[in-house]
Parts: sequence; C-alpha cells; structure tokens
Amino acid sequence: MTSDRANRAPEIISRGRVEALSDGVFAIVVTLLVLEITVPHIAEHGSVTELARALRTLAPKFVSWVMSFVTVCVIWLNHHRLLTMVRRVDNGLFWLNANLLLWTSFTPFPTALMGDYPTNRLAVSFYGWVMFLASLGFVLVRGHLHRRPDLLQEDVDRTTFRTGTMYSILMGPAAYAIGAGLAWVSQIGAFIWYGAIVCYFVLPHSMRGAPLSSRTQP
Amino acid sequence: MTSDRANRAPEIISRGRVEALSDGVFAIVVTLLVLEITVPHIAEHGSVTELARALRTLAPKFVSWVMSFVTVCVIWLNHHRLLTMVRRVDNGLFWLNANLLLWTSFTPFPTALMGDYPTNRLAVSFYGWVMFLASLGFVLVRGHLHRRPDLLQEDVDRTTFRTGTMYSILMGPAAYAIGAGLAWVSQIGAFIWYGAIVCYFVLPHSMRGAPLSSRTQP
Amino acid sequence: MTSDRANRAPEIISRGRVEALSDGVFAIVVTLLVLEITVPHIAEHGSVTELARALRTLAPKFVSWVMSFVTVCVIWLNHHRLLTMVRRVDNGLFWLNANLLLWTSFTPFPTALMGDYPTNRLAVSFYGWVMFLASLGFVLVRGHLHRRPDLLQEDVDRTTFRTGTMYSILMGPAAYAIGAGLAWVSQIGAFIWYGAIVCYFVLPHSMRGAPLSSRTQP
Amino acid sequence: MTSDRANRAPEIISRGRVEALSDGVFAIVVTLLVLEITVPHIAEHGSVTELARALRTLAPKFVSWVMSFVTVCVIWLNHHRLLTMVRRVDNGLFWLNANLLLWTSFTPFPTALMGDYPTNRLAVSFYGWVMFLASLGFVLVRGHLHRRPDLLQEDVDRTTFRTGTMYSILMGPAAYAIGAGLAWVSQIGAFIWYGAIVCYFVLPHSMRGAPLSSRTQP
Repeated sequence: MTSDRANRAPEIISRGRVEALSDGVFAIVVTLLVLEITVPHIAEHGSVTELARALRTLAPKFVSWVMSFVTVCVIWLNHHRLLTMVRRVDNGLFWLNANLLLWTSFTPFPTALMGDYPTNRLAVSFYGWVMFLASLGFVLVRGHLHRRPDLLQEDVDRTTFRTGTMYSILMGPAAYAIGAGLAWVSQIGAFIWYGAIVCYFVLPHSMRGAPLSSRTQP
Repeated sequence: MTSDRANRAPEIISRGRVEALSDGVFAIVVTLLVLEITVPHIAEHGSVTELARALRTLAPKFVSWVMSFVTVCVIWLNHHRLLTMVRRVDNGLFWLNANLLLWTSFTPFPTALMGDYPTNRLAVSFYGWVMFLASLGFVLVRGHLHRRPDLLQEDVDRTTFRTGTMYSILMGPAAYAIGAGLAWVSQIGAFIWYGAIVCYFVLPHSMRGAPLSSRTQP
Repeated sequence: MTSDRANRAPEIISRGRVEALSDGVFAIVVTLLVLEITVPHIAEHGSVTELARALRTLAPKFVSWVMSFVTVCVIWLNHHRLLTMVRRVDNGLFWLNANLLLWTSFTPFPTALMGDYPTNRLAVSFYGWVMFLASLGFVLVRGHLHRRPDLLQEDVDRTTFRTGTMYSILMGPAAYAIGAGLAWVSQIGAFIWYGAIVCYFVLPHSMRGAPLSSRTQP
Repeated sequence: MTSDRANRAPEIISRGRVEALSDGVFAIVVTLLVLEITVPHIAEHGSVTELARALRTLAPKFVSWVMSFVTVCVIWLNHHRLLTMVRRVDNGLFWLNANLLLWTSFTPFPTALMGDYPTNRLAVSFYGWVMFLASLGFVLVRGHLHRRPDLLQEDVDRTTFRTGTMYSILMGPAAYAIGAGLAWVSQIGAFIWYGAIVCYFVLPHSMRGAPLSSRTQP
C-alpha cells in the first residue's frame, strides 16, 4: 500500500530507474577508462625487446587505470548502500544524485591528467579536488535525507545514519582536501594518500570503524 | 489480469524493455559527453602556470559539458514522468519514443558546435533548433497518448494531462524556437535563454506552475 | 512451478539477463552511431556562410546516421517480439542470439563505409550482405525454436510461428540479398531498396501482411 | 523471509545490482570492440578493386574482433552460471567480482596488441597472460564461495561445486598458462590453442565433461 501510494504522490521518482541510470553511468565510466590505453606502435613488428620497452612506458597508464577502476567501484558500492536505505526519490534527491553522477563521469579526466603529469603539483592537486567534489556529492545526498527523513526506509536508525554521515565527511571531502593540499608539498605523498583512501573503502566494514548500514538489525 | 491480457494483445511492446533501452541511451549519452574534454598537452610537465593556463582554455568545454549533462538529466526526468503514466506501448508510441531518443543521442553534436563557435549565430541557433526537435519529440509522444487514451494508466486524469501537454509545448518547442530566433540578434542572450529553460525544469514542481503528474491524487 | 523447475534444469540461462545484455548492446550501438559526426573545423569562427557550407557537407553522414538508428531500432523491436515468445534460453539459443548481437554491433562499420563511398558498388553491396547476415541471425534463432519447441511459451501457436518465420526469411535475408545484388547495377536503386525494407518494419503490423505474434489470442 | 533478513544483515550487497553493473560492463566491452575497425581511406572513391584490397587488409582485425566478441560472451555465460548459484553478495565477493570485471574490460587491449603484432612472441604471450588473470578471477570467486558456503543457494551441491572449481582451474588459468608458454615456441600454435579454449566453452555442457550447475536436480 505504502509503495503504491508513494507512486502516485506528486514529485515521486522511481528508485529502480534512478538506480538503472546510475548503474549505466558507473558501468560505462569503468569500461571507458581502458580506452585511454592504446596499442603502442613499434618499428620492428617481431621484436620482443622493443615491445617490452613500449609496454613498460605504458606502466603509469596501467596504474592510473586500476586506481580509477577501483575508485569508481567504491563509489558504486557506497551509492548502492545509500540507496538501499532510500524509500522514495524526490526532485531534490534526484538532482543531488545527478550531481554525484556528474563528478563520477568526470573521473577519467583528472585521472588521465595526473597520469600524464605525475610531477605537476596542480595536476595532482586537481585530482584531489575533483574527488573532494565527488565525495561531497555523497554528503549532500545524505544531508538531504537528514532534512527529509520521510524519504528513508522505515527501519533506518536515525542515530546510526547520523554517525554514518559524519564518517562520510571525514573519509570523503575532508580526506581529499588534505590530499589536495599535500600535493603542493609532495606529489608522491599525495598519491599514496589518495591510494590509502581507496584502500580504506575496499576493506570490509568489520575492519573499519564505520557502521555499514544504519538499519536496525533483526 | 489486465496486464496479462495486454501482453498477449497484438502490437504490444513491454514498457519495461522500452525503459531499459531508453535508460541505456540516456546513461551512455550523459557519460560520453566528458570524452570531448581531452587532457591538454603542455611543454614543461612540472609547470603549474602552464597547466593552469591550459585548463583555463578548456573552461568553455567544462561549461558546455555541465549544460549538456543537466539537459539530458531533464530529458530523462520528463521521460520517466511521462512513462509512469503509460500502461501499454504500441507500435506508434515505440517509434515516437525512438524519435525522442534519436534527438537526445544527437545532443553532444550541437553542444560541441556551440561550445566551439559561441559567437557564430548559426551555431547558437542550430543548438536551439535541435532542442526544439527534442522537445517536440515529447509533444508528439503526448499527442499520440491523447489519440490513444487506452495506452494511459487508468488513474490518469485527462484534463490535467491536457494541461500538462500545453505546458510542455510552451516550455519546450515554443521556448526553444524563441531562443533559436534570439541567437541571430544576440548569442549571449540566446545562451542565457537556453540556460533559463533548463533551470525551469530543474526546479521542483511546486515552484513551477505546471502540474507534475496528471494522476488523481489519493 | 514451471519457471522454478526450469531455473534448476541443466543448461538453462535466464531470459532476463540475456535481454539485459542484448538491450545494453542495442543502446550502446544506437548511441555510438552519432560519434562519427564530428564538429567541422572552419577558419572564420563567426562566419555563418562558412559554417552552413560545412554542415551541408555533413549531410550524407546525417542521413546514414538516421538510417542506422532506425535499423537498430527495428532489430531491437523484432528481437523483443521474438523473446517474448521464448520461455527458456538454452546454450544453442544463447549463441544464436550472440551471433545476432555480433552483426548488430557491426552495423556502424558498413553504414559508415556506404556513407563514405555511396557510388562504390562494393561498399553499397557490402552493406546489404552485412544486413543479410544480421537478418539471417533472426532466421537461425527461429530455426532453433522450431527444432526445440519446448523453449517456446506454451500459448505460442506453432502454425502462426511457422508463417512468421517464412515472412522473416522473405523480408530479411532474401530482401537484403536482392539489394546487395542490385547494388552492382544501381547504387541509388539499392539504397532506396534498403530504405524500403526498413520502412516496411516501421509500419504497424496491421498495415503489413505478416502476423505480429504467434500467440493464440485470448 | 530468508531473503528479507539477508537484505538487512550487515555487508550485504544486492545480487541484482551487481548483475546489472556486470551486464553493463560486458555489453559495453562487447560493443566497443568494433570501434577498432575503422573505414579504410581509398583514393578513387568508386574503385571496387581498391576497396576490396583495403577490406582484405582489415582481415586480421575482423578475426580478432570475432574472437574477442566470443570470449566476452563466454565470460558472460560463465559469470551468469556462477551468479545463479549465489544467494548473497558480501564485500569480499563484490571485490573479487570487480577484479573479474577489471580484466574483462581490459580484453580489447591485448586482443588489439595480438591482432597488430601476430608474429611477436611477447604480444601473443601477453594475450595469454591477461586471459590467465581473467580466468583466475573466476577461480578466486569460486574459492571465496568455498570459504563462505553460506553465500551459496541452499540447493547447490557442494561436491559438484568442488568438481566445477577443479574444471574451471584446468580449462581456465592452467590452459591459458600453457598457451602463453607455447607462444614463445609457435605463435600460430598458441593462437590455435586460444581458439580451442574458447570453442570448448561454446560447446553445450553435455558435450564437455564438466558439470554445468552444481545444483541438485529436481
């Protein structure tokens, strides 16, 4: 009944189709990333040493590809976890989700920039600021859900949800702002810092301090 | 029962798969848009000033990318709202929806054209005419549903649906035709006009005058 | 029960995920088509006459883009109609469907070839032969369903299904083979012939002679 | 009940959305493959002999495109079969699946490399090692399910599942490691070996020795 009435209420958008659009964007971004790695041209087609040298030159591109791939997967996972707590999507939530997709679909650009100019302070800092905006996107979505708790599933515990938002600020925008600042001092340091943020999110929740879901356990 | 019989009636196409095809097209268009922004080539790899200058040159591309992204999201949202009112998809509705997808998938071309030649009257007008055709696509879909009300959900109020169609003509083809004409007088004026149309659709329905859904409220 | 047992039987593939894979391929092909149309470079950025001339040069690309778009939509529609009659997907059906997707995803190449060399007999004939293979893909899928009627929904009428297969041979491989032969005599003639085949499939079933679905009407 | 409780338990990811993400990646990879085949440039636009010669030069690209297409379809099929046995997706399974998607989305690069330098021992061996990693991805997913049998559907027979894992090691990483080694002796031999592995998976299960599903038959 509830879901049926929700479907008829004004300004209600289907969560299923918002997920389909988001999943499409995530799948395409993750797959397009590899298009940046093009087959190297070598003079002597049969030469193993020449091809080995050409492939070694591509090493930074391989590293940045894997890093971007894992980052988009982390965004997908956090997006998925957040949306399972959502009962209804209103106009505001749709546009805050679109903002998140905007920065996610932008990911290939700063990653390629950093991959091409790894010793440029601006390039490494630029990556951090884009990630800052992408993770801020999550905080904005969560902030909207704090203002409109009727959009949340009924079994979501508000206190745990608030703790989750605080964690997502700390491990998201705050962490990336520190990395973006660090880039002006040490590019290697910032790169390791960015990698550490991604690793944190790959770890299972039991090994982090953060609550996974804000739902009351059965 | 109704849906079961509908599935067996001649020329009935699954709304779910039409949505899946449409969502796929929207997700891909929205993600492909960023591919137009390529990493700039700078001579001195570590130079912050050179990279900052190169990124500033890309500014128009960033603006046109965000504008296209938001426009496709608006199309997605209107498409979603229209399709929730549809009960069955017949041959005519399928092809009118395909016409809408055709112009939506074309979006990157006029946006890039306007982004590359922002002072060219034809380029700025061309953008308006393509958007005219895309928004006309919505009016044509609505017109088909007026002729074939059996394709609509039973709880859709016909009078409100008619009002919604009138709004979609005014804020769609009519608004873009005015912008396309304005482009021959002032390109900046047309650009602001196009932006205003998009902003109108981003606003929640309660702040516009238009009815969101033509359904009888419970 | 039936569907539940079918899920556990050996070599059964979920129809839903085969549709998801197919819809993904169709959506991507249809959207990638526009990437072939690139923004023209003009010397004087504000010149309307120069831009108008450049856009006129792109006319053949616009035509071939619309034709490919409609063709892929026709394939989607026929694919959808065929799959609604299917109850279970076995290994053979999966690979015959993959063959159909292979030729559909190939579509952009022959279309671009014909668009670039519209007066070349081989280019225009090549397009016909690829379409011959794509439409043969449908006939092969139907042939498999004739040999394995247990894969069909129970309410599919076998006689009507046989008639549908005969129509799909006539309007598919046979029609394209004639067009591919005609290309060696008259390229314009073959082009009109290809367009006529597409138009036939856009028409509603009531205006063609062919049966839409092979299902017994309730 | 079971599925409902599973949805609320910590660290549970929706199998449906993992499938949607995976299907998106598979559909995009399979469709992007054809983008590598570009329309050849010929001097005399109407010359049939010149175009025929240009198309013959593209022959290796056509072959590598078909081979990649079939390989990704095989991965899709094995992925589908494995996931139907899964009841719940935990953090570990998500990331092992992401690892599988990573190597699958990488497929176009080694295929193009081998297609461009078919006589280069490193290029042909490189293809084998990437396929080794992709098929190892399947073994790692299966290994996780052996350690966490609670993630499997209840009707999955553990003994048959173990046999299936052994087959997937033999016909996957082991077979590709042999091919990658063979490439240093004979590139043609390795190429035929790779083709044979793909053919094995295209065959219906009744013609292979391996068990299709590890489920108890009703």
